[in-house]
Amino acid sequence: MDIKSIQKELKAQKLSGRIFTLGNLFIGEDILPEENRICELTGFTGSYALLFVTPAKAYLFVDGRYELQAKKEVNLRRIEIVKLSEISFCSWLKNNFAKSSARIAYNPWIISLSTLNGLKKLLPAAEFIPAANAGRLLSPKPVKVFTHQKKFTGQVSKDKLAQFAAHIKKCGLDAFLVTSAASTSWLLNLRSNALPYTPVFRAYVLVEKNGAYKVFAENTDYETALPFAKLAEILPRYAKLGADFCSTPAAIAGFAPQLADTADAVAAMKAVKNPTELKGMRNAHLRDGVALTKFLFWLSKNYKGKTETEVAEKLLAFRKKELNFYSESFAAIAGFGANAAVVHYHADEKSAAVLKKNAVLLLDSGGQYYDGTTDVTRTIALGEPSADMTEKNTLVLKAHIALASAVFPQQTSGSELDLIARQPLLKQGLDYEHGTGHGVGFFSDVHEGPARISVHAKNSAPLAAGMVTSIEPGYYKENAFGIRIENLYTVKPAKNPKYLHFEVLTLAPIDKKLINKYMLTTEELTWLNRYHRQVFLSLKKYLTRQELEWLREACAPL
Amino acid sequence: MDIKSIQKELKAQKLSGRIFTLGNLFIGEDILPEENRICELTGFTGSYALLFVTPAKAYLFVDGRYELQAKKEVNLRRIEIVKLSEISFCSWLKNNFAKSSARIAYNPWIISLSTLNGLKKLLPAAEFIPAANAGRLLSPKPVKVFTHQKKFTGQVSKDKLAQFAAHIKKCGLDAFLVTSAASTSWLLNLRSNALPYTPVFRAYVLVEKNGAYKVFAENTDYETALPFAKLAEILPRYAKLGADFCSTPAAIAGFAPQLADTADAVAAMKAVKNPTELKGMRNAHLRDGVALTKFLFWLSKNYKGKTETEVAEKLLAFRKKELNFYSESFAAIAGFGANAAVVHYHADEKSAAVLKKNAVLLLDSGGQYYDGTTDVTRTIALGEPSADMTEKNTLVLKAHIALASAVFPQQTSGSELDLIARQPLLKQGLDYEHGTGHGVGFFSDVHEGPARISVHAKNSAPLAAGMVTSIEPGYYKENAFGIRIENLYTVKPAKNPKYLHFEVLTLAPIDKKLINKYMLTTEELTWLNRYHRQVFLSLKKYLTRQELEWLREACAPL
Repeated sequence: MDIKSIQKELKAQKLSGRIFTLGNLFIGEDILPEENRICELTGFTGSYALLFVTPAKAYLFVDGRYELQAKKEVNLRRIEIVKLSEISFCSWLKNNFAKSSARIAYNPWIISLSTLNGLKKLLPAAEFIPAANAGRLLSPKPVKVFTHQKKFTGQVSKDKLAQFAAHIKKCGLDAFLVTSAASTSWLLNLRSNALPYTPVFRAYVLVEKNGAYKVFAENTDYETALPFAKLAEILPRYAKLGADFCSTPAAIAGFAPQLADTADAVAAMKAVKNPTELKGMRNAHLRDGVALTKFLFWLSKNYKGKTETEVAEKLLAFRKKELNFYSESFAAIAGFGANAAVVHYHADEKSAAVLKKNAVLLLDSGGQYYDGTTDVTRTIALGEPSADMTEKNTLVLKAHIALASAVFPQQTSGSELDLIARQPLLKQGLDYEHGTGHGVGFFSDVHEGPARISVHAKNSAPLAAGMVTSIEPGYYKENAFGIRIENLYTVKPAKNPKYLHFEVLTLAPIDKKLINKYMLTTEELTWLNRYHRQVFLSLKKYLTRQELEWLREACAPL
Repeated sequence: MDIKSIQKELKAQKLSGRIFTLGNLFIGEDILPEENRICELTGFTGSYALLFVTPAKAYLFVDGRYELQAKKEVNLRRIEIVKLSEISFCSWLKNNFAKSSARIAYNPWIISLSTLNGLKKLLPAAEFIPAANAGRLLSPKPVKVFTHQKKFTGQVSKDKLAQFAAHIKKCGLDAFLVTSAASTSWLLNLRSNALPYTPVFRAYVLVEKNGAYKVFAENTDYETALPFAKLAEILPRYAKLGADFCSTPAAIAGFAPQLADTADAVAAMKAVKNPTELKGMRNAHLRDGVALTKFLFWLSKNYKGKTETEVAEKLLAFRKKELNFYSESFAAIAGFGANAAVVHYHADEKSAAVLKKNAVLLLDSGGQYYDGTTDVTRTIALGEPSADMTEKNTLVLKAHIALASAVFPQQTSGSELDLIARQPLLKQGLDYEHGTGHGVGFFSDVHEGPARISVHAKNSAPLAAGMVTSIEPGYYKENAFGIRIENLYTVKPAKNPKYLHFEVLTLAPIDKKLINKYMLTTEELTWLNRYHRQVFLSLKKYLTRQELEWLREACAPL
């Protein structure tokens, strides 16, 4: 597919435009390069975008993280970049198509029912037409499925299914179609090698109220899986069938007009980690901290002349030595100097920058371990940072501490916490164009719902004890440098159990060379020194003598 | 009416229970004592409560502000107090009536359509029956209506009506029934003496899309007003009629089944003050600050032996001397010692406590001026406060400053700001059981929607430039003391107009005797000293020499 052939087709069918979302039949989750139609059409490689092609033009919608990257990657003569920080896709559609009786094509296997319903409500005069050339659903690459063992999961699939079936019954449904790969994977304690970073089994599971279930998947060695086409035959059997419209392709409603929009309760169940999962998370973070600390020591001695790609590979090599390591949890971001101002920058081997002194390296990375998932960002001064870098890094640290040490009532949503983190930056007229935190799965998706710490995406899902979330404020100065400080935390009851607070999981030093201690309050300084003491005491027995001496210095109180 | 006769009636009609809400046909707004059926039935005088009477029992639901007060005021043998901080009214109803096919009576002129619809959804098996003995709608006391002059309002009613009519048209409606007294009053630039503290004209106004309008009111000297009964005849004339179900009695839907639930746009229009209103607000706050400061000076010399009631009267006497003063904006709360722990305490002349040294007085009061409305709380040390009082007051001050100095994006709602204020308290395991702030009307209701700074009441209405809000964190130690520090602020664009911040309106010293400066950060101390400098410079020319010397000391930097 290319934009010209799509435009030809639009003209032939008298269509006003066609919407492309970045996804496959698992909607919002990770996709493989061969499934990325937006990249195929535009060259844009970021993890989020929308594309709208009209007979005459193409518009690529990107958020704050990707504005710079999109400018670099796409052909700006043929594709217009629209900044989602300036106009939402919905407002843009409304501005352009509200008055006409537009005919808009979409891919029914890739667009969710909730998105389609939203678009229909937005443009009541428009006609939405399933595109004829929907293309391949999933990569044809054969997939190996494997069991996620009880010693890691803490709960067998049978129990999870029984618990979920009871919920289905309580909702008055006959069955529920789980369409999220992460939910399916958690429920069945299955994982697969389909994706490079997220070990989920990309399957649907149809669960009946009595606990019986059927799995739908393709190109896998999971023998009893049915092909997706079978849904057309099976779904009509249930008078009362639920599915979460946010993760269910519009095509499904074609087979099951009786489908009722019901929140994916598995997503809520899996977001609250059980004691085995939490213990695993702590252990995985300890090992991940060891790997990252060994790397940081190595980096301090060896950065000169290395490329961004090379340091990311070195970090991976350290992680690979750790117990239970499976893969990175996403492609590590190593952004040097001005590259770090591109929020989700990815170096390629050819263009990767060479590290030099007197600049900062932003390193956002994580690991999938069988007993947990990590995600950590450190910003590291190479040589002597400028006063500006130190000031901004200290503000980002203040932002991080403000939220990391917050106490909040039960039922608080992430959007009610986000501005606590942003205050130190906003008061200086600074901000960052991304959320402050996201949920993290367990040997699963590194971005997990339902909760999310963001004031931009108004999310009312409350944080609950047992959830794992990142806290990752940042600051990005275009063409200069980028800063982000990210730890993962579990949500725990506070002393008074009506309230919750965060307990840190991530164990790795925060670069003191980038901290101006005179900008910290006593409380903030205490937080930092305590955190460093915890890092040192946790990691010290896993390091060589030289690494230990380096860490002792890195963690010494300010 | 008394509870026994209601219970007799419930039995006769085979009803499961009857709901009483505190209101009249203007739903959530101020009511007169002779309209307060909950007080008539239970003796409870607080400004918010729900009463549910069953054939065998009566349950009074009160929030955190009124738990202590309710215990003191009602007969606990006959009435059970249910704490809304522990269970919501909805959860309680569901626990008790979800499984039965309950028959529940309500007063159709007092309960709003949105509340009734919510109850029907909550208890689908229940039957909701309009009570036969609805009783009198409004006090029979004759009401004088007067014009709020252009020099104060900045906009004539004709312009407001034209603006609103254009909105009605845009919504595709033929007419809109404004059922909020505050909205009617703002739209028509009319006020009345119906209520002691809120000068609103208690009327409905039906506005047609061409701008023509009809006023509905009773017992007033507004000559062209129609009686409410006329609605039954007039409303059916409009095919497309809107009303805000949150402020519209269920009875109205009986006359107009075509009624569409449409947000009261007047409420949003009036919440954003125009330049004349904002200038008036500033002037009114200056005069109010003069009155309060003169009072504080007087109090410092004369508190011994005075009762709570006497000091409230003295403060009123100072306000009465100020230009454009009309009335208090609510019955002043003067809570001495342990009384201040009752959040919305009201002394009566017989039981009012006598002020003594070495305790704190909490004083929450405000004025209605023709050019603005004020609402301010100061907590004042009489003699020497204890270390505990000083510590808690300093934490409350930190909470106040945290929010007062916040910067936040456009579209931020109050529930996304509330926890910024609570952090200094929550981190010490302390909290307050009320919201952090409320909108304030202009020579109108002192509690004004749509925005509200509260994490408990999930309110998604965004704060916008031109709104006026209180910031009023507190701390209450049962049987010991109570603390609250409240200022009003306008919402203003920050330097970067994508963001908003607060600008203070209230001008009165915050008692330094209750501040431990070593608990404040440099930033907080700077805020306090700057605020006091502004207070001193603003008020100094309106004071006697003695008052001036006192204020100079009260505002001297810490």
